[in-house]
Amino acid sequence: MKKKRGIYEHGFDLHYLNKYASLLALGNGYLGIRGTHEEDYTGQNRGMYVAGVYNKATANEPSEIVNLPDISGMVIEIDGQPFSLLQGEVVSYERVLHFETGELRREIVWRSKAGARYQLLFQRFVSKHDLHVAALKVTIISLDKQAEIKIVTGIDAQQTNFGKQHVIEESVRVYNEEIIQGVYQTTESGVIVAIAAGIHVPETSKVTFSAKNRQLLSGISCKVAQAEPFVLEKIGTVYTSHECDDPETISLEAVQTLTPKGYDGLLAQSAAMWQEFWQLKRVSITSSNEFDQTAMDFALYHIEIMTPAHDERFSIGAKGLTGEGYKGHVFWDTEIFLAPFHLYTEPETAKKLLQYRYKHLQEAKEKAAQNKYEGALFPWESAFTGKEETPEFAAINIRTGTRQKVASALAEHHIVADIAFAVVQYYESTIDEDFMKNEGLALLKETARFWISRTVDEGGKLSIHDVIGPDEYTEHINNNAYTNYLAYYNVEQALYFMEQYMDEEAELFEKGRDFLKRLYLPEPNDEQIIPQDDTFLTKSEIDLSPYKQKQGSQAILLDYSRKEVNEMQILKQADVVMLLYLLPDLFSSEIVRKNLFYYEEHTIHDSSLSKAIHAIVAARCDDYAAAYRFFQEACLIDLGTNPRSSDEGIHAASLGAIWLAAIFGFANMTMRADRLALTPKLPANWKELKFPLSYQGRKLEFKLTHQICEITKLSGLELKIEINGSLFELKDRLEVEITD
Amino acid sequence: MKKKRGIYEHGFDLHYLNKYASLLALGNGYLGIRGTHEEDYTGQNRGMYVAGVYNKATANEPSEIVNLPDISGMVIEIDGQPFSLLQGEVVSYERVLHFETGELRREIVWRSKAGARYQLLFQRFVSKHDLHVAALKVTIISLDKQAEIKIVTGIDAQQTNFGKQHVIEESVRVYNEEIIQGVYQTTESGVIVAIAAGIHVPETSKVTFSAKNRQLLSGISCKVAQAEPFVLEKIGTVYTSHECDDPETISLEAVQTLTPKGYDGLLAQSAAMWQEFWQLKRVSITSSNEFDQTAMDFALYHIEIMTPAHDERFSIGAKGLTGEGYKGHVFWDTEIFLAPFHLYTEPETAKKLLQYRYKHLQEAKEKAAQNKYEGALFPWESAFTGKEETPEFAAINIRTGTRQKVASALAEHHIVADIAFAVVQYYESTIDEDFMKNEGLALLKETARFWISRTVDEGGKLSIHDVIGPDEYTEHINNNAYTNYLAYYNVEQALYFMEQYMDEEAELFEKGRDFLKRLYLPEPNDEQIIPQDDTFLTKSEIDLSPYKQKQGSQAILLDYSRKEVNEMQILKQADVVMLLYLLPDLFSSEIVRKNLFYYEEHTIHDSSLSKAIHAIVAARCDDYAAAYRFFQEACLIDLGTNPRSSDEGIHAASLGAIWLAAIFGFANMTMRADRLALTPKLPANWKELKFPLSYQGRKLEFKLTHQICEITKLSGLELKIEINGSLFELKDRLEVEITD
Repeated sequence: MKKKRGIYEHGFDLHYLNKYASLLALGNGYLGIRGTHEEDYTGQNRGMYVAGVYNKATANEPSEIVNLPDISGMVIEIDGQPFSLLQGEVVSYERVLHFETGELRREIVWRSKAGARYQLLFQRFVSKHDLHVAALKVTIISLDKQAEIKIVTGIDAQQTNFGKQHVIEESVRVYNEEIIQGVYQTTESGVIVAIAAGIHVPETSKVTFSAKNRQLLSGISCKVAQAEPFVLEKIGTVYTSHECDDPETISLEAVQTLTPKGYDGLLAQSAAMWQEFWQLKRVSITSSNEFDQTAMDFALYHIEIMTPAHDERFSIGAKGLTGEGYKGHVFWDTEIFLAPFHLYTEPETAKKLLQYRYKHLQEAKEKAAQNKYEGALFPWESAFTGKEETPEFAAINIRTGTRQKVASALAEHHIVADIAFAVVQYYESTIDEDFMKNEGLALLKETARFWISRTVDEGGKLSIHDVIGPDEYTEHINNNAYTNYLAYYNVEQALYFMEQYMDEEAELFEKGRDFLKRLYLPEPNDEQIIPQDDTFLTKSEIDLSPYKQKQGSQAILLDYSRKEVNEMQILKQADVVMLLYLLPDLFSSEIVRKNLFYYEEHTIHDSSLSKAIHAIVAARCDDYAAAYRFFQEACLIDLGTNPRSSDEGIHAASLGAIWLAAIFGFANMTMRADRLALTPKLPANWKELKFPLSYQGRKLEFKLTHQICEITKLSGLELKIEINGSLFELKDRLEVEITD
Repeated sequence: MKKKRGIYEHGFDLHYLNKYASLLALGNGYLGIRGTHEEDYTGQNRGMYVAGVYNKATANEPSEIVNLPDISGMVIEIDGQPFSLLQGEVVSYERVLHFETGELRREIVWRSKAGARYQLLFQRFVSKHDLHVAALKVTIISLDKQAEIKIVTGIDAQQTNFGKQHVIEESVRVYNEEIIQGVYQTTESGVIVAIAAGIHVPETSKVTFSAKNRQLLSGISCKVAQAEPFVLEKIGTVYTSHECDDPETISLEAVQTLTPKGYDGLLAQSAAMWQEFWQLKRVSITSSNEFDQTAMDFALYHIEIMTPAHDERFSIGAKGLTGEGYKGHVFWDTEIFLAPFHLYTEPETAKKLLQYRYKHLQEAKEKAAQNKYEGALFPWESAFTGKEETPEFAAINIRTGTRQKVASALAEHHIVADIAFAVVQYYESTIDEDFMKNEGLALLKETARFWISRTVDEGGKLSIHDVIGPDEYTEHINNNAYTNYLAYYNVEQALYFMEQYMDEEAELFEKGRDFLKRLYLPEPNDEQIIPQDDTFLTKSEIDLSPYKQKQGSQAILLDYSRKEVNEMQILKQADVVMLLYLLPDLFSSEIVRKNLFYYEEHTIHDSSLSKAIHAIVAARCDDYAAAYRFFQEACLIDLGTNPRSSDEGIHAASLGAIWLAAIFGFANMTMRADRLALTPKLPANWKELKFPLSYQGRKLEFKLTHQICEITKLSGLELKIEINGSLFELKDRLEVEITD
């Protein structure tokens, strides 16, 4: 039998508890539940989150995504023995997140300390069919004898965000001795969250209820014969005041309506939606290394469950809804690393992500004004209100004993241009005039206005001072190449679309043209290296190989202070490479190659945003081996063996970049104004790459091998396609022989 | 070798985690730390509390004692194996709380999953010498091979009160890579709490620091040879803004000063104070059952560590500082069950407990006024502010799905008379005119005023309607015998002391005399039973034996609603028996005996306040066997085999009552105006009972056997002593032959 597609955990290992809790998280863009075990383990961090439900624990802290009262936890005792994989013997164990159904299953045969064996099957899903539904099923079979099973489960509001409590327990209720419900309110943002759950157990069970210490619990006790399955189903619903007026009533009615369908019925509905998802959006890789496909499926699964496609008031957190890392905040990751997947598979979702920014244009203008700039300065970290949410302090400095200020909110301004870039990219791939004329143009104009005000005149040239580029190991520098080129692009595009839509704001035109004329754009030096900023290339160098070996861990900061790192040629992540990825036509391929090589040598890849971008640029430079190596390493950021890599959530942007690497690296697509272009660069290990693409209203399907490029148009008008430099007309289907 | 006095835990059992955490708690009246293991276990509730540091999580909740950031937790890994008693093999295990030194020690030989054996010794104490100090010591010896030891420990502010976070992390610092410090502030009460810790490890250790997610941690890594002890010492200090202006500086300086003394030096100082304590206050029991002495030592140990003798702004919580049960609130338990121990061993402490009430006379007057009464109505539950802190709701009612209102704040008014009773008791045993003239008289007058206003005129007689007596299973009844007699006593004593001090408030005199003349005092009926209230004896009866078997668990409420219980002759705890204990001269011994028998039959003893009081009254009735049985059962409330009896803390009042049973039951002491009287009623199992007593400025020592009563006066004036009805003059020493 063919193994089903999914992420498998073949053994139970305490070191990997929180990593797997993140990897095996369930969700649907509205609701996210970490893949923690039903039973508790020390250090295991449970988490349930709803997109957009943020709260400040105290007034001067940033908002964070709220870890809501839990419905997944259970205390299980069989024949008086607490069920724990740390006690007794684990005879067999397998846990798998099934991509095809979105179900998390865990099958165990456990021998208790008392010697008897029990078979336990845990099933769980978060519905893709009904965003408000999560369901669990537990089946226990006593293999050796009759048994007494006791389970305590309910709604546990002792959950916190690492000790911070964000919700008040407003009320807890038990209805008809069947349905439990808790209603909670966030302390500062005032969101009402109603959680209800119906618990179904064998009729012979004794059931009691209790409410104490923020736990509303149902205690179930049941005697079963040998080999007789004990089945518990728990159907939970979550509603908040963000999407309805009376979450209390609706969550209760939903449980009442849904419970009769049972776990299996509800799962079938959800699984059907997952099937549709994979049919429409899957990237198929035929590789000598099966892991490539698994990593790609994993990436798409998570991109799907992290994206609040249902509501443009919310965007994607840096860890999705899988953990509390970065407090659930929204970064440039969304526009640059994640939005493209949606744009090229379901543009409506990409539009909503931009609308999220548009909705907060006012707050961005306020932030600009507070900093004495014009236009819109989007926050480095954003949540529900659109205000700056970057924490004031980062980790403790062990030499001074004090915490270090986080400078990103003050200087990491490239996010402004990143958003503008995404606006243009959205338009070019959708020709959505409606959006562009209104939200799009407003975003472009206000971001352009910001950049114009952000410059200083240095002997006639305009410089941009005191910024941080994507490489956060180099702070407070002038004329960061990435920032300056993107700012130029931003203003250029703003003026272009102003002209297109006959915008008449003459002053902005004038200032914009002057900006474009006078902005300093760092040129390659004599060695053809584009200086990352005004001083970078003058800084000292050290051997980075020991730190590269520990990449992702920021081990360099154990040996050097941030200030010291700042004074050396050390990159946390792709910076010029990032620029070359986004704007591939700026420089000759020779210059791209030289810069990739130079900067990669100086990059530790401590950021998860680095590797896959290197893969793309390396592929474009025809360095197939390096590209594939970078791609594989990018895939290991979450899926590698480091047990603590993903404790606080998966790396959303990195997963987005895995998809980018396939499409913009290995297929090497480019969207030009009048055509799609591709110059495939398939890794040697890959036999075939298949993917769908939505482009300017067309639904396309690409199938690439080392010999053939096959493109099918499923819907939409004819289209010009350039393959390896030759132009073709795509009517319904196109098959072109190619050579690597 | 004689086993040292203490509480022993001979095996590790998950079911008993939180019970032992309460039993083995350390403290000094200022600081309390639960006896949790250094390593975490699922469901193990760590706790550190400072007397008087309460906070409201939200505005409409009662204050609760704050579970402060933890310093006792450690993550230990040896040769890559996480140290946990659930993994590998526990070759040997013993944990003991040593009464003589106040030290908690745990000795383990552990074989890791990898097969190697390690010996671990954990030591810990909270200093009795310096209230602000807690220290830990860990010694690890690798028995089979060289080893690598990793320990992570620090200050963990992820601690909550069952999910409620009460403190903001204001700052965390590391000084000289040696001392860590966290400064916290409670969110509502605004108390600053500074916690500092110096960690000393072998010089060969590598030490790193981190501060993230409310945890300030030191990571220690050290290689040791076989048989070479690895020793970690952690000296912690805790200061708050309640007792000093700059807790941050003081806590840091204290660690700097104390660390050089080392764990052993600091322990020696503290142990010396414990030695003094036992010398001055121990009750020695020579019993055929050694457990009697252990239980008595246990009671005194806990009474000592729960009492904030250092500061009259605080009183004793119902669970001391050993857990979060009853939210750390102060009940009548303090005055009636706990104050006597202090009064008769160190009267200054008893006085402070009364001053705590006096300080809040204003709040009590406000509560009376709000309820349209006069005088002072003390809150049923009190914390730092002296305002009513009783939670509005109790457990969920599974039939209605709603929570039940707690009526105690509205009707359990006997606490007013209980406080007055303690005032008089204090005076009679100290003749502290200064206190009585001022605080004492004010308390008596205002409480008397309350009772006068609390009556209703029923055909000339004054009734007290709608109260709850000590028996909380009978609510909202009229003329509760306990309440009415105590109210009478309250007013009578107020008038007496007003006369003594020539108080001239004529109106109160007049109203008080009228009250005494007309107050309805329930008389024994034809069967000589004193009716608990107007309707109690008319209510139906059921067989209580099944519930008595599960006493302490409130099992009756699983079968009957509170309303149904209210309509039957079912007592949660001694009510009329309580009255007979406090006012032994009210009725003939025949009536006392009959009422003890009648009411005991109807009492489930679901309250921990019940058993020891029955022991006293039974002893006085010469029912030695029953008295001893009740005493032993009272000792088992915390120390029995029920694994969950004490999860949220020890039963403070019950421990106080164990001492009461010895002194007022088995020694059967009475304090009369002009003499001490005793009629010893030693259990058959007891050969000897020895105890100290402080009385009207004298320090006395009693030694009782079944044959001889020996009394030594260590200091103070001569004293009249009545033994078994005969009067003696105690000069220095008195030895009287008695017969049982």
